[in-house]
Amino acid sequence: MPNSAVSTNAFADLRPSLPPLPFLAAPGYAATDAWVAALQAAMPDERIVPFSALSPADQAAVTVAIVANPDPAELAACPNLVWLHSVWAGVERLLAEMQDSQVHIVRLIDPRLAATMAEAVLAWVLYLHRDMPRYLQQQKEQRWQSQVYRRAAQRKIGLLGLGALGEAAARSLQQAGFPVLGWSRTQKHLDGVDCYSGEAGLAAMLAQTDILVCLLPLTAATTGLINAQRLAMLPAGASLINFARGPIVVEQDLRTALDATHLQHAVLDVFAVEPLPPDSWQWTHPAVTVLPHCSAPTDKESAAQIVAGNVKRYREQGLLPAGVNRQQAY
Amino acid sequence: MPNSAVSTNAFADLRPSLPPLPFLAAPGYAATDAWVAALQAAMPDERIVPFSALSPADQAAVTVAIVANPDPAELAACPNLVWLHSVWAGVERLLAEMQDSQVHIVRLIDPRLAATMAEAVLAWVLYLHRDMPRYLQQQKEQRWQSQVYRRAAQRKIGLLGLGALGEAAARSLQQAGFPVLGWSRTQKHLDGVDCYSGEAGLAAMLAQTDILVCLLPLTAATTGLINAQRLAMLPAGASLINFARGPIVVEQDLRTALDATHLQHAVLDVFAVEPLPPDSWQWTHPAVTVLPHCSAPTDKESAAQIVAGNVKRYREQGLLPAGVNRQQAY
Repeated sequence: MPNSAVSTNAFADLRPSLPPLPFLAAPGYAATDAWVAALQAAMPDERIVPFSALSPADQAAVTVAIVANPDPAELAACPNLVWLHSVWAGVERLLAEMQDSQVHIVRLIDPRLAATMAEAVLAWVLYLHRDMPRYLQQQKEQRWQSQVYRRAAQRKIGLLGLGALGEAAARSLQQAGFPVLGWSRTQKHLDGVDCYSGEAGLAAMLAQTDILVCLLPLTAATTGLINAQRLAMLPAGASLINFARGPIVVEQDLRTALDATHLQHAVLDVFAVEPLPPDSWQWTHPAVTVLPHCSAPTDKESAAQIVAGNVKRYREQGLLPAGVNRQQAY
Repeated sequence: MPNSAVSTNAFADLRPSLPPLPFLAAPGYAATDAWVAALQAAMPDERIVPFSALSPADQAAVTVAIVANPDPAELAACPNLVWLHSVWAGVERLLAEMQDSQVHIVRLIDPRLAATMAEAVLAWVLYLHRDMPRYLQQQKEQRWQSQVYRRAAQRKIGLLGLGALGEAAARSLQQAGFPVLGWSRTQKHLDGVDCYSGEAGLAAMLAQTDILVCLLPLTAATTGLINAQRLAMLPAGASLINFARGPIVVEQDLRTALDATHLQHAVLDVFAVEPLPPDSWQWTHPAVTVLPHCSAPTDKESAAQIVAGNVKRYREQGLLPAGVNRQQAY
């Protein structure tokens, strides 16, 4: 169809020329090309370029950049930068490193990410609920023995964090028949979820929780939240799933609780240092399942669509998406 | 409350005396006492006794017995036996051994059993869907590597068997976002399930199935159904879950398909011989998860309530529950 192609090009030529839209990831990041391709496909009118390909004139023209855990020093090359769109949901490192900057930081809020995380929560809750760690150990020992079955209705799941991820996880767990408790910084009200907040609320929830699932953002207030004292509040035989950020859990306190068999099992997807170093105790502890930060991988296509919508509203109407609250840090 | 106790006893004395209701399990079965207690609690007006405790007069009076995989030769001591209530859902061994008998055989159809099985199907489908076998192997190797994530919507689950168990499993899988296909002996119609029947229907379903879940009863027609030819119809990289009966799968054909990596993984809860003998290849095959027939344990309280309802209708109205069809064998 040559006619329609000509008219599209003619139309494009009439539009004011846009500054390039750079993508900047951490040094050595392997997926830059894949991100540039996904973002370009979602924004055919934009010129998506790796940050390193910007000319000095381009650098001066840039007002918005898309980032994946970038080095803030590199961003300083763009003096007119107004805002950053992260393709990650967690931006705690970026915030810490840019605390003196006025640049507006937007994190990814992707309903598909929440769905993937809710699926992961359900999958590894069922892994614990149906005694998979024990059956896998029995297989190694060639031991044929049924564990006592407990119904989902008799197993309480405590969620730490009731944002988009926590709410989606609560729905999936409820559909599967689990009673759900939830704790958040500010009091929430979710249908069918027993909601708690504050220090006393945390103690009240932990005392009833059979499987504790951490979905909190990493902030000054949540760093070290799951320590010896809080783990001791869980009933004997409880388990922990951490799908949020490593430093929320005091790793040595967790190890002590597992060694004492006060905690039955921990499923850990995140660690204080990632990738988990080779000599870490978690790799070989019989009561720990180690995952390589895989609970909710970003879907590049879906994320690119969300970034594209936010960029379009900025280009056409000058609107900035809601940014991260620097006090709360999420 | 002595008055009420007296009046209850007085009432009981006016009822016609009932013959005892015996419970008969396989020789060496460990849970006879627990079953007798659960059945007695559900039927306070009946006299539940272990089969071995029947006097000769009792044996002649018995018209109904409750059984868990019994030796039919023992049942011959009760010449007036009209019907048997099994506390298992699968009665293929009883049917085979009693094929010349006129005794009516009732199997357990418990909605709670279906719910537990549906949960097991969801749990181990998610185990495969979220690559747990691979992540567990990576942990042993201390390897930090994310597998490519595929959404549930892109993973087709094929159910073999669309009875009470298959239908409950289909609902759970659909809630979790999986497209569900189903195959049954006679054509079924279930909301949102792509239903197949017959030999051609089986081939059509297998060709599209990423995870095949077997929930079929064991009959002459299903013995050896999952053989080399049918496994070859699955796409490369498909997986199998067998939660039904061991002899439905030709174990050597399964081993060959796993060794050739045509099949990625098998979760096996049932085997040709159970407990799985110590020298069996399944225990140590890296692509096999062995479970000790634990996918859907009978809940004694719930089963006893269902048996009690059926016994009550028989005692009060002379009604027999629907029995097993000896042609179909389920």
